[in-house]
Amino acid sequence: MNSLCIVGLGMIGGSLAGALKASAFEGEITALVRTEESGRRGVTLGLIDRYALRPEDIIPVASIVMLAVPMLSMRSQLEAIKPYLTDDAVVTDAGSVKAPFIRDALAVLGKLNRVVPGHPIAGREKTGMDAADPTLYHQKRVLLTPTSEADDDAVEAVSELWKLAGATVEILGSEQHDRVLAATSHLPHVLAFALVDTLATQQEAEEIFRYAAGGFKDFTRIASSDAIMWRDVCLTNRDAILDSMDRLDDHMKKIRSAIAESDSEKIETIFARARKARDAYT
Amino acid sequence: MNSLCIVGLGMIGGSLAGALKASAFEGEITALVRTEESGRRGVTLGLIDRYALRPEDIIPVASIVMLAVPMLSMRSQLEAIKPYLTDDAVVTDAGSVKAPFIRDALAVLGKLNRVVPGHPIAGREKTGMDAADPTLYHQKRVLLTPTSEADDDAVEAVSELWKLAGATVEILGSEQHDRVLAATSHLPHVLAFALVDTLATQQEAEEIFRYAAGGFKDFTRIASSDAIMWRDVCLTNRDAILDSMDRLDDHMKKIRSAIAESDSEKIETIFARARKARDAYT
Repeated sequence: MNSLCIVGLGMIGGSLAGALKASAFEGEITALVRTEESGRRGVTLGLIDRYALRPEDIIPVASIVMLAVPMLSMRSQLEAIKPYLTDDAVVTDAGSVKAPFIRDALAVLGKLNRVVPGHPIAGREKTGMDAADPTLYHQKRVLLTPTSEADDDAVEAVSELWKLAGATVEILGSEQHDRVLAATSHLPHVLAFALVDTLATQQEAEEIFRYAAGGFKDFTRIASSDAIMWRDVCLTNRDAILDSMDRLDDHMKKIRSAIAESDSEKIETIFARARKARDAYT
Repeated sequence: MNSLCIVGLGMIGGSLAGALKASAFEGEITALVRTEESGRRGVTLGLIDRYALRPEDIIPVASIVMLAVPMLSMRSQLEAIKPYLTDDAVVTDAGSVKAPFIRDALAVLGKLNRVVPGHPIAGREKTGMDAADPTLYHQKRVLLTPTSEADDDAVEAVSELWKLAGATVEILGSEQHDRVLAATSHLPHVLAFALVDTLATQQEAEEIFRYAAGGFKDFTRIASSDAIMWRDVCLTNRDAILDSMDRLDDHMKKIRSAIAESDSEKIETIFARARKARDAYT
């Protein structure tokens, strides 16, 4: 593992770079960037050793290429790096949806033996490499979803990277990943965006935000997340997200009826069951 | 202001008591409790000076009575204390819904000149007096919703109490309070309970909670709130909450269509607008 190249040196990629710099990782850390300015900033922040603007100047020496870009930019980045990848180079990513990345990788690379899709279950609402935090992945889970075609040493190399960054690594199927994350991550983000936008566009919006408390702040924090990244998640994990939205909608209809009918017992049962589930998980 | 009696010495009432004990408040702090055990605990924790199990033993000396009980217990508590209230005693509360409290107070007391409804915009998910925190109200807002009938000195006395506890006090109408809080507090609580219960009762619930991240934890924190308290909020602020639910539902339908149709631009517009609103308010 002598050279990691990060494509997309934002908060996610930058945090990994920073974590590896602070770890026992002995390889070189490089980045493929879009501007001289961001490359220099990455070096100044101590995240990377060097950078390039053109894939041909950096991909040929990379033993691992990490794509940390929004989901809908994955394919074009794969196309850009493909001509310069060595046969042994491992390609991984940090995207929130895994099955579409596998489809993109197969379509562009033609094979999946060196492809190890990944998803760190950690994040911040802030974006950009200046928000990078080398402790972001400490004691967090990283889910890898390699296909059966993946070489063991490729999976091992990506696992090692995340472990050096402080994370624990788990392997699961890409379809299961996308279904489960639709429920716990994608749906809550859609809900938070929807709630804040509903309030912001209604009458009394000013008073509404003025009298909001800490609970509301926590509840809506994820609505400060990057719009492009989450747009791409919705577009690429569409069916699982729609399914999750529909399940919640069914449940909301039941709660709405219980409230409309002043069904005290039913409301209490649902709230108490939710509280118990929430407390059991934390 | 020589004697404050708290009815319902839980997290909310206990935090006020603790804050006043740590402040320049010179009066006596008492509590009307249901068991010897909880009364003794309140004294041991340093929250109250003394307590009583029967209203006749403590209400006659109270210059302010603070009702800190779930919304649907307000009326029976008002009935219990009414015979022992002095003419000058001020009655206030810490409930999340204000118009129903005013209706209850008018029905039981027959007049509102000494009634000053209040709502501290602060809370924790934990319940009970052991969760009391004397800093809970520091730099938080307390909303008072007195009617035009209220005596100035009564409003002043309740304001003073909250200011001593570290809060800032604002006055607004009870109907506006209930409408605004339905949007920023009641609806998010219903949503959080609904989301957690949806996930907890579906297949793969274990994996779902297992792979949940920090964003989900923040988003669902309020689902750890007291089920009875929030049941009562839903029952007493029913129409405003249903109205808020319907507004959100309309919005969710639009977002669902945009996702189903892969309408990239519409999704991004909504998410970006929400992000901007969220960032502007914090």
